Amino acid sequence: MKIVIIGGGAGGLSTASNIRKYDEDAEITVITRDEHIAYSPCAIPYVLSGDVGCFDDIIMHEPEDYLEREITVITRAEVFEVSSETNKIKYKLIDNHEESSGIENELSYDYLIIATGGAPFIPPVEGAELEGVFKIRTIKDGSMINEWAKKSQKAVVVGAGLIGLEIAYGLKKIGLEVTVTEMLPQIVPRSLDPSMASIVQKYIEKKGINVILGQAIDKISGEEKVEGAVFGDEEIEADMVILATGVRPETKLAKMAGAKLGRWAILVNEKMQTSIPNIYAVGDCVEVYDAITGHNTQSPLGSTAVRQAKIAAKNITGINAEFNPVLNSMVSKIGDLEFGAVGLTKTAALQNGLKVISGKSRALTKARYYPGAKRIDVKMTVTLKGKIIGCQIIAEERVAERVDTMSLVIAKGINCSELANMEFSYAPPVSMVIDPIILAAEDACDKLNKLNK
Amino acid sequence: MKIVIIGGGAGGLSTASNIRKYDEDAEITVITRDEHIAYSPCAIPYVLSGDVGCFDDIIMHEPEDYLEREITVITRAEVFEVSSETNKIKYKLIDNHEESSGIENELSYDYLIIATGGAPFIPPVEGAELEGVFKIRTIKDGSMINEWAKKSQKAVVVGAGLIGLEIAYGLKKIGLEVTVTEMLPQIVPRSLDPSMASIVQKYIEKKGINVILGQAIDKISGEEKVEGAVFGDEEIEADMVILATGVRPETKLAKMAGAKLGRWAILVNEKMQTSIPNIYAVGDCVEVYDAITGHNTQSPLGSTAVRQAKIAAKNITGINAEFNPVLNSMVSKIGDLEFGAVGLTKTAALQNGLKVISGKSRALTKARYYPGAKRIDVKMTVTLKGKIIGCQIIAEERVAERVDTMSLVIAKGINCSELANMEFSYAPPVSMVIDPIILAAEDACDKLNKLNK
Repeated sequence: MKIVIIGGGAGGLSTASNIRKYDEDAEITVITRDEHIAYSPCAIPYVLSGDVGCFDDIIMHEPEDYLEREITVITRAEVFEVSSETNKIKYKLIDNHEESSGIENELSYDYLIIATGGAPFIPPVEGAELEGVFKIRTIKDGSMINEWAKKSQKAVVVGAGLIGLEIAYGLKKIGLEVTVTEMLPQIVPRSLDPSMASIVQKYIEKKGINVILGQAIDKISGEEKVEGAVFGDEEIEADMVILATGVRPETKLAKMAGAKLGRWAILVNEKMQTSIPNIYAVGDCVEVYDAITGHNTQSPLGSTAVRQAKIAAKNITGINAEFNPVLNSMVSKIGDLEFGAVGLTKTAALQNGLKVISGKSRALTKARYYPGAKRIDVKMTVTLKGKIIGCQIIAEERVAERVDTMSLVIAKGINCSELANMEFSYAPPVSMVIDPIILAAEDACDKLNKLNK
Repeated sequence: MKIVIIGGGAGGLSTASNIRKYDEDAEITVITRDEHIAYSPCAIPYVLSGDVGCFDDIIMHEPEDYLEREITVITRAEVFEVSSETNKIKYKLIDNHEESSGIENELSYDYLIIATGGAPFIPPVEGAELEGVFKIRTIKDGSMINEWAKKSQKAVVVGAGLIGLEIAYGLKKIGLEVTVTEMLPQIVPRSLDPSMASIVQKYIEKKGINVILGQAIDKISGEEKVEGAVFGDEEIEADMVILATGVRPETKLAKMAGAKLGRWAILVNEKMQTSIPNIYAVGDCVEVYDAITGHNTQSPLGSTAVRQAKIAAKNITGINAEFNPVLNSMVSKIGDLEFGAVGLTKTAALQNGLKVISGKSRALTKARYYPGAKRIDVKMTVTLKGKIIGCQIIAEERVAERVDTMSLVIAKGINCSELANMEFSYAPPVSMVIDPIILAAEDACDKLNKLNK
């Protein structure tokens, strides 16, 4: 069985490894445009901040590691033709391949996996091509930002999603004056309600980061190099501008193959199969089904790609497996502050026409008297029937696993009164006798009881 | 409505507070033998270790705080008669009540709540009455240990359950030479399998604590004061011996009232009602139903008492509520090591005649390249049909919330293949791209697949 995988990120390489796990004999070839493979793009901000030593540290594997498992990895190679009629792809070597650069090659496949990921979206503003303007996606992007930051004093980060905030914090930490800007009236608009976002905002402002909300970037000023960023009437001086304005799925090759596209990305079924039976797709380039809204959405996360890869590999090797609808669980850490969410915010629920209330708690991460207890904020989105459909959590510790608990709650359709009676573990140095999650569930129950009176 | 509650611990006082929440007019009286109320006995070891400043810190409320909410609390008072025919109890003031000591009083009730807790079990060994031998239950016990420890060099802690280990670590931390002994061949026998217990054992041994397994204490030697503890042929020198040999439910008053007792403790239904309709019981003095074995068991935990109190209070005030069968979730922290468990160990499952396998993972608490990532060990107990019925987790961070996630998994009957596909949150500083829980579930699936081939 000949397998060709386009893309050397989490989706592509996990598919390769999983296929090898289930099939010792498959011929597996991975082709990627990138120079590096198997690295964690989500770790780039933490290299910039100095928390992780260097970019080499976040590369988990080299192509040679895959060769040991008889997986061929071709780097710096661009696929320029996919034919689902002949089951062949054509690629050429690019970049620094020296004498062989530009040479065209052909590979035939029994199964093709498209794991082409996404490309940073560059807003169409004047000055976006100036020196000192950066996008953020690959290690190469990260290295360039890192070098440029060394000779810079002032940075503007456009976009206050996770990556934007993480980069902003990283640059602040290494001594730059940093402004982060967001078109929408709050930070982290995809995952947090305004009230929860403002907790994170206060934290980053306290760390000295300047935040501008409700302003799209109008222009990047400068001659050859960036000199400032213009928002309405205001111009902010800057030696560098980082565009963290989202990612667009790379669907060109899928389209060329004739696979159906959805509103944003490649359409796949629950087996991760495209509309062409022997072409699968995984990762940031596909659309997923949202467990709560019932609509298609995007889930551009490494963890999603890894789970999809397992499903694709199983189905390709003859094992039935289905990718579950997504719950959109996320977590991030900025400085000491951890924040995470799963499911729908109250805002998103209302936008989706759902009638909901919030269950809230503000409590502590340890027993009240235990030294080092941190404040924790929990906010749940709960339907009028008591079903929990979302949760946001912020604290300086122990957030990620609570988000995972809430993922299970939402996936299993547990309502707030059932959750309020759930048995949670307790010891003074690690928890409160009544967990903040339980307190928020109780708050939701109390509110619903009052509504129904 | 007249409510009398016997017991001023987590069970008794939470019942009082919850009744007040649902009924503004109830006359509520709490009677306790103890001088202090509303403190966290589980915190005593952390005061001994110096992690928590002093015993006053772990007292959450004074009787006056309850008076504000019109809850009368009578401390240092012993109930010596309960009559379920007349619906009356009699008590006398004891201890340091000076002139009023010994005076008898009577209270009538519409509902009586028995929250008498448990008393430390003192093994019937020679020397148990010597000076320098301590039990550990109340703040008074804790204070006495604290004082005695100041003039001691060597301590023996009998019993390697949670409290035993926590006390042993506390005494070691303040400079004593400490030996902890256990009758059974492993530490934490109730919650951990031998392989997991040995990880904890290695950790405490590395901290300099001496561990003796498979030896019951035969004698405590000394004239007036403790001089040593004898185990078989061996005598260990000691200035103090702490008996952490378990707790026996206090059922005397329940028996006097004519309430039915079970094998260990007071029998209650899912409303926390005893066999006498207007007498309820909560906390360490009742038996609970085990969700997995289907047998009655004990759950002597503050968190259990608090959940039971809420259920009792609701039912007494006319709101239907049921206490769920217990999953036996627990967590502890010794030094930097956190360990927790829920459901059945493999050992316990086999003892209960269940056929099971284990799903295991040894992974990290953060991305591999992220500084400060700690080792984490997960072991799941899984039936041959794939149902998860237990889980043990050990790491130097982020254990408690994972135990809670697994409580939900077990409560909802989620099997290992469903868990292996679950969506967990991910960010390099706080988790691995595939959570250790997922890895253990995958391991269980792989093992079951091999068995079924």
